[in-house]
Amino acid sequence: MHPEALYVSLTDSVRRLVDVTIRSQSNTDRIASAKAKIDAAADELSETLIPGSFGVQQGSDGRPRAWGNAVIGLRNALAPPLVVHHEADGSVWADVTLGAAYEGPPGHVHGGICALLLDHVLGATAHKPGRPAVTGTLTLRYELGTRLGDVRAEAHVDRVDGAKTYAVGHLSTADGVTVRAEGVFIQPRVR
Amino acid sequence: MHPEALYVSLTDSVRRLVDVTIRSQSNTDRIASAKAKIDAAADELSETLIPGSFGVQQGSDGRPRAWGNAVIGLRNALAPPLVVHHEADGSVWADVTLGAAYEGPPGHVHGGICALLLDHVLGATAHKPGRPAVTGTLTLRYELGTRLGDVRAEAHVDRVDGAKTYAVGHLSTADGVTVRAEGVFIQPRVR
Repeated sequence: MHPEALYVSLTDSVRRLVDVTIRSQSNTDRIASAKAKIDAAADELSETLIPGSFGVQQGSDGRPRAWGNAVIGLRNALAPPLVVHHEADGSVWADVTLGAAYEGPPGHVHGGICALLLDHVLGATAHKPGRPAVTGTLTLRYELGTRLGDVRAEAHVDRVDGAKTYAVGHLSTADGVTVRAEGVFIQPRVR
Repeated sequence: MHPEALYVSLTDSVRRLVDVTIRSQSNTDRIASAKAKIDAAADELSETLIPGSFGVQQGSDGRPRAWGNAVIGLRNALAPPLVVHHEADGSVWADVTLGAAYEGPPGHVHGGICALLLDHVLGATAHKPGRPAVTGTLTLRYELGTRLGDVRAEAHVDRVDGAKTYAVGHLSTADGVTVRAEGVFIQPRVR
């Protein structure tokens, strides 16, 4: 198996584990047994570790890999992961299914998770290859609760002023638009 | 072991697994072996599952349990989890250590994770027992990169106007204040 596919498969297993850890009603013996297996798996993975964090690494194809990223990282079980599509007009969108791990109010996505997704897709409108933009300001208006399940995130550039990109976007579900956002994202100087 | 302590211990094991899944440099055989153990553990935990999501359940002590919450949930491996301290003057604070799973720019906390933490602590100033407030608006100003590691989140009420609580707060690290936030949180009507 290609290393990338192996990591995708491993991380998908960890995502499922995160979900069932929240929802399990197994008895204490089973939980203790599962915990022992998880600890043994973590030991196997820990033989040698990248120090600190994954960062952004250069792939064998020369493209940057943000595999540890909290929103898009394919090796990060916290990340749904978001797959961000870039359109020719500069707009971006992503479809994502959010389960129990993203909950705030019962049955609904945590308001801060909505902010996390919107920060990422608005920022993605300002990214240049190998030069991700960083957030300057971000303003969110919550119009409806965002139900757990299928969510679309989308954003586009309102205007660009030097290193600053002004982006707007929103989340939507079957209920309609739930959260609107606007933000300023800053292109760091090339070092 | 008390069920709560057992769940805390299980979820801490899953948090470690999330971290090493990002940072592992083990060979493909070890990764495949770890994945098999993780799948077996998930199967054991899946015998019977709470449908959908955890929601908020009543504990045997009568207190609400948000164990699945994306920020504070003790059974949610995505949650650091944040332990929010409430002071007598209505201010709140939490100290948290953020590792590889919370990364955005290399070595730094994802801007959206900063938003997630600030949404939660600002909202916590408006919570009444059993009646969590929901986010109306949230504005974030990013002043410095937030390095991975020890982060403090704090917030206080600026003013209250009927069901609306106006809260302000910030994140800080050894570098100083990194992100400032202000938000309006709304107390839902009692149903």
